[in-house]
Amino acid sequence: MTALKVEIRSGAYYDSTILMQLQSSLGKMPGVLDTGVVMGTDANKDILAQSGLLVPEAQAAKPDDLIIVVKGEDEAAAEAALAEVDNLLTRKRSTEGQAFRPKSLETAAEMLPEAQWVLISVPGRYAAGVTREALRLGKHAFLFSDNVSVEDEISLKKEAAQKGLLVMGPDCGTAIVNGVGLGFANRVRKGNIGMVAASGTGLQQVSARIHQLGGGLTHAFGTGGRDMKEEIGGITAKMGLDFFVRDPDTEVIVLVSKPPAPTVADELLRAARKAGKPVVVDFIGYTPPASRIGNLHFVRTFDEAAALAVELAKNGGKTEAGIEVDTSKFAPGQKYLRGLFSGGTLAFEALLILEDYLPAVYSNAPIRKGHNVLQNSLVSQENTIVDLGEDEFTVGRLHPMMDNTLRIQRLLQEAEDPEVAVILLDVVLGYGSHPNPASELAPAIKEAIAKAQAAGRHLEVVAVVVGTDQDPQDMEEQIELLQGAGAKVGTSNDRAVRYVGELVAKLNPPKDEGPSTEFTPVDIDKIKQPLAGINVGVESFAESLVAQEAKAIHVDWKPPAGGNEKLMSILAKMKAK
Amino acid sequence: MTALKVEIRSGAYYDSTILMQLQSSLGKMPGVLDTGVVMGTDANKDILAQSGLLVPEAQAAKPDDLIIVVKGEDEAAAEAALAEVDNLLTRKRSTEGQAFRPKSLETAAEMLPEAQWVLISVPGRYAAGVTREALRLGKHAFLFSDNVSVEDEISLKKEAAQKGLLVMGPDCGTAIVNGVGLGFANRVRKGNIGMVAASGTGLQQVSARIHQLGGGLTHAFGTGGRDMKEEIGGITAKMGLDFFVRDPDTEVIVLVSKPPAPTVADELLRAARKAGKPVVVDFIGYTPPASRIGNLHFVRTFDEAAALAVELAKNGGKTEAGIEVDTSKFAPGQKYLRGLFSGGTLAFEALLILEDYLPAVYSNAPIRKGHNVLQNSLVSQENTIVDLGEDEFTVGRLHPMMDNTLRIQRLLQEAEDPEVAVILLDVVLGYGSHPNPASELAPAIKEAIAKAQAAGRHLEVVAVVVGTDQDPQDMEEQIELLQGAGAKVGTSNDRAVRYVGELVAKLNPPKDEGPSTEFTPVDIDKIKQPLAGINVGVESFAESLVAQEAKAIHVDWKPPAGGNEKLMSILAKMKAK
Repeated sequence: MTALKVEIRSGAYYDSTILMQLQSSLGKMPGVLDTGVVMGTDANKDILAQSGLLVPEAQAAKPDDLIIVVKGEDEAAAEAALAEVDNLLTRKRSTEGQAFRPKSLETAAEMLPEAQWVLISVPGRYAAGVTREALRLGKHAFLFSDNVSVEDEISLKKEAAQKGLLVMGPDCGTAIVNGVGLGFANRVRKGNIGMVAASGTGLQQVSARIHQLGGGLTHAFGTGGRDMKEEIGGITAKMGLDFFVRDPDTEVIVLVSKPPAPTVADELLRAARKAGKPVVVDFIGYTPPASRIGNLHFVRTFDEAAALAVELAKNGGKTEAGIEVDTSKFAPGQKYLRGLFSGGTLAFEALLILEDYLPAVYSNAPIRKGHNVLQNSLVSQENTIVDLGEDEFTVGRLHPMMDNTLRIQRLLQEAEDPEVAVILLDVVLGYGSHPNPASELAPAIKEAIAKAQAAGRHLEVVAVVVGTDQDPQDMEEQIELLQGAGAKVGTSNDRAVRYVGELVAKLNPPKDEGPSTEFTPVDIDKIKQPLAGINVGVESFAESLVAQEAKAIHVDWKPPAGGNEKLMSILAKMKAK
Repeated sequence: MTALKVEIRSGAYYDSTILMQLQSSLGKMPGVLDTGVVMGTDANKDILAQSGLLVPEAQAAKPDDLIIVVKGEDEAAAEAALAEVDNLLTRKRSTEGQAFRPKSLETAAEMLPEAQWVLISVPGRYAAGVTREALRLGKHAFLFSDNVSVEDEISLKKEAAQKGLLVMGPDCGTAIVNGVGLGFANRVRKGNIGMVAASGTGLQQVSARIHQLGGGLTHAFGTGGRDMKEEIGGITAKMGLDFFVRDPDTEVIVLVSKPPAPTVADELLRAARKAGKPVVVDFIGYTPPASRIGNLHFVRTFDEAAALAVELAKNGGKTEAGIEVDTSKFAPGQKYLRGLFSGGTLAFEALLILEDYLPAVYSNAPIRKGHNVLQNSLVSQENTIVDLGEDEFTVGRLHPMMDNTLRIQRLLQEAEDPEVAVILLDVVLGYGSHPNPASELAPAIKEAIAKAQAAGRHLEVVAVVVGTDQDPQDMEEQIELLQGAGAKVGTSNDRAVRYVGELVAKLNPPKDEGPSTEFTPVDIDKIKQPLAGINVGVESFAESLVAQEAKAIHVDWKPPAGGNEKLMSILAKMKAK
């Protein structure tokens, strides 16, 4: 007859790895059919119950208690197995290397003074204390432990921010620093992509895909899943982003998170917008305002994030294939765009794309009713896009795609405005349109540019030609005519408008806000040094560092004061200056 | 001294082309410095004022009045020019061809019985009447005219829908039917992309770019800008979409519009979701729920729409590069997915992607708090994704990326459920993770599949391996082990989850709603015949058809009853059956 035997051990601390090994060793003993080695939480009791191992004593155990259940072929086998528990728990572990194991972080730091990092994977209730100690020693913290309180996370991160140190976590599963993985991490080649992730397997999936697709990383910083919540305010994410913005080796940045709190998303995206390099944003489940806003590229899955980052990284982070933006020729005071469209939806798309670049663009056909409406369609204000195909212009008059009169008149009018820097036109070819629009528009463009020049200004005219090589107008010739008159010509509204947007945004720069006072920037040079780490908790994390040829030292850690909370807090106070 | 002379003509009807020619001819007369030939609207008066041509008599003109202003070198020159107006207006127009010009649509239809289309570009107040006549004659209507009332648009489209006829417009600038452009249209090669657009220049820009990028069109249907508004309900868009869904030549569909009314967007997207072919959606300015939902691909600009359509069209419209979905092996009753994840954010992404395929997926870590929560983490319900790395599972236990025990136990448990068809697992490699997870998972997968088979079922196991070729575990070997056990293995969570989503969605088909009763489907064969059209209004549109080698007949149209509204309505009533 099979027999179930149980042993409960109260209040003792056991490393999870040791418990897994205990369960495995017990299971291999003669006459043992099944075993359960778990802490006495409700969820664990349910799991025991599913295997038929939940005896009444186990049912009565507290969450702090260790439950050891053995199901034997008979009572003797079960008892023999339980009798071995002490032996198994104290058996010398077979880890090689490291002759002397320091018992404290302080000693470890003296032994490996170049260590910039402390990896912490002790049980949650001890983790904040160890992290505080790491910060006191001036080390960045990789905080794998979960079950750390929000209050502790806030106070740790605020302290770290002041010191220019990163606290990755709590509950941070993974990071890659200078080619070396911390915690769970894939081996990813070095490259020019930097990652900040509030998601462990998100970071792993994206970084692994980046490697699979031929790309590589500078570093990938984890923040812990709670970092981008309202309470924490994304302290680590902001510091990480700021790091990659400044880091010259990083040419593309990837941000990964479950949807951040709106205020945190706002702040991060605003900072990312000024990065001066492309930022791929995968706030999974977050609905972005657009798929693209300037240098921000919003994606929906890890796969897309990796693919886009690798593609952008190939171009050394250049987002735009278009012409280079040069504002040097404009006279002081020239700063506005005037778009004179014959195509209504081209005008609409232009307005939409310009939202990425300019705070306000006025129009007689605005995107949102009543918002940024031109007071008088015939007179532009600041940055303006006019749709000349709107009803007010076409009563008893042919569509502006057929009749260029009004557009030419307006073009010359805009050219005389000393605040105008750029005029944007669409030229729609095809059946039904004017048989040779460039023959009328080109002379007007030439005249407009000459007028501005005579007044000591530089006027840029950009024309989008919509057409095909089979259209009746001869698209090539139309383009040449317009170029001959001095216009820059493209065939993609998207690209032309983005070029104009970048140009005009550069002519209207936002005020510089100066460096952030929220945190001390992380020292780039220190992060770039060969990684060395001090490990406290799950021993295999130290072994992983060594396997990656990083220097590592494992601390033979035990809960301070045998886990006695009162004593612990006295010890902590004594250590603090 | 220069002189301004003006003439006002009341209540007469003039074709806009003729007015443009009149202005141009007057401008070329000796001693004429400037001219204005406009209808007396406020906007037009403002334009005259800007040129210094707004004399008091013109200021007093009504919107129906034609204003002719001439600025001469002297009074004699201005008067001489005005005296020529009658001559210029009645001068025989120099259009070639077409010996006999019918005066009515009816006669034209008798002369060109194969005409499927009537192109209408008469002034707005006459346009509804002409369109009604076209529908009565069983023709599709291309309605270029604007200033048609919403009431007329609704009644015209309802009548057309009953008859399986398309009313494109009012204010529809462009369409391409069977390679022939109507109104304003670029010459675009034939191909396998079908377009429905509520935007004229949107259709032109996308179709021109499709051509530039090497793609081609079956047809491109315009709907008029108001079609997708609440009042009209997208009647033409729905009929057009339905046409392309049925049309075997169309392999990719593109939908372009300014943001439709939410209800219309909903209905269109629901219909598009069932198209069985990829649909590229560019509702410019609309924030889509995702960048991709099954076969729906949301883009933000015309450029992206064209590029993606061409890319998809190259694959003959196949959206998924993945494995083919085969549900034939499952036993009746097998229909559910069970996802057992070790990576929290992989689970989160899976839940998110599955929203595209399944109405509800339960989880212990749901996307939205309190929504689709698993009642008990240990027991799956219907479709379920469990995150085994959640706190409830990890107290005193190593993370499931290190310890496979729980996952294996759960895997075998799920395999015994007769309603389970697919089990999805992630296998995260790298430093820190289990040194050889497949050595433990593969035997369990094999056992699970065998168990199901023994019970007469087919169990599909899909594993996502996250890793790189430089990871310590030997990714290739891990993949082979899992495949050897009978699992389908991928390295992209996105793609694996989409495969599983399609598979499980196919096992849980929505009820068939039957064919729409809202409209009579448009006859595909009729649209595929060589295009022939009857043109009423702007004459150059007929010339364009002829230039494209389509048969066309131009109607020498005049407002019925000389524009007298009362008489017009009596005539209309007499014609209606």
